Amino acid sequence: MFSGAQISLYPMTGDFVGVITGALGALDPYRNQLRIETDDISTLLVGPPDTLFPAMRDLFVAAAGGGAHCVLSGTISRGCPGEPDDAICASVSFDGPRENLEQRKAESLASVAAATETGTPIAAQFSLYVMGTDDHMDEIYGCIDFLKQSGVFDRAKNFCTRLAGDAAPVFAALEAAFCQFGPPAGHVTIDLTVSANSPTPR
Amino acid sequence: MFSGAQISLYPMTGDFVGVITGALGALDPYRNQLRIETDDISTLLVGPPDTLFPAMRDLFVAAAGGGAHCVLSGTISRGCPGEPDDAICASVSFDGPRENLEQRKAESLASVAAATETGTPIAAQFSLYVMGTDDHMDEIYGCIDFLKQSGVFDRAKNFCTRLAGDAAPVFAALEAAFCQFGPPAGHVTIDLTVSANSPTPR
Repeated sequence: MFSGAQISLYPMTGDFVGVITGALGALDPYRNQLRIETDDISTLLVGPPDTLFPAMRDLFVAAAGGGAHCVLSGTISRGCPGEPDDAICASVSFDGPRENLEQRKAESLASVAAATETGTPIAAQFSLYVMGTDDHMDEIYGCIDFLKQSGVFDRAKNFCTRLAGDAAPVFAALEAAFCQFGPPAGHVTIDLTVSANSPTPR
Repeated sequence: MFSGAQISLYPMTGDFVGVITGALGALDPYRNQLRIETDDISTLLVGPPDTLFPAMRDLFVAAAGGGAHCVLSGTISRGCPGEPDDAICASVSFDGPRENLEQRKAESLASVAAATETGTPIAAQFSLYVMGTDDHMDEIYGCIDFLKQSGVFDRAKNFCTRLAGDAAPVFAALEAAFCQFGPPAGHVTIDLTVSANSPTPR
């Protein structure tokens, strides 16, 4: 199944190019597991979710480390019927039949609990979209129930859910939301915003 | 039907707060037609699409006018079954049965052709998501066909479609994509990125 993301890094500083180029080294450990293409709007990452989410986490933690207000915005997708399959995307995450919702929630909670903290606090909000099924809201509500128990749930907002915490459990929760909810071979996407060092009070 | 957006403006400059606050006046003509709430990640706009898209356009054109590299990122939604209805969202756009796809494409092209240019060139990319139906890709392909004839189509990218041109026809095309494709009362969302003044070559 084809999976990947279009991501953009927005450092709110006149040296935004320096912050971005300085953070790109964080992708080096993942480069042989991803196809990467950049233009003036975004960078395409094609690869399996268990590489995509840690790569986005490490890129964002590196960019935020300089202290500037930084945002990572991402369009993350799996199983889009309009995309060709690609061997680089192979993942055990989507083999086999879908387990029941309670099992998937429990596995999601375990993966968040197992995340090793990075020391970088972040705020995030995201929308999970499940296409091509008429039970998509059941999956969304199941995911929200998992998030509320995850330790990184902040609050519900219109159109999205807000998370807060260390970058590691937050990105682990995002990966679980993306992989565990919606049909294993289904078309599932996330519209993601991650923020650090904002001067605006919450 | 409930409709609205979570939007964020990212000026890549140390004076990002000044650019954002300087652009907010562009929302003044729309304030009595929108409910607006801001936190440290995004600003919620609740209102009908025929107000939302012009408001986003004018805000972005005002922010980009200073010359700094600016990005507007938005999560735009209509008909989400999890959101309560709101009288402020009332719109004639979603009354009546869905016309056939060719009629909707023609109306979309007419609205783009009628847009009065702003003088601000922008680049944009977006994904259109149609939930709760098993024919969602037919609607997506219909929308892409409209975009290819619209004069603001740039190219297809993985997971999204890239537009370029004056801000007015680009935002008119985005509004048509959002309103004309997917069921009239359906759950439809757009994941949007708009960019101006990027130093990166295309």
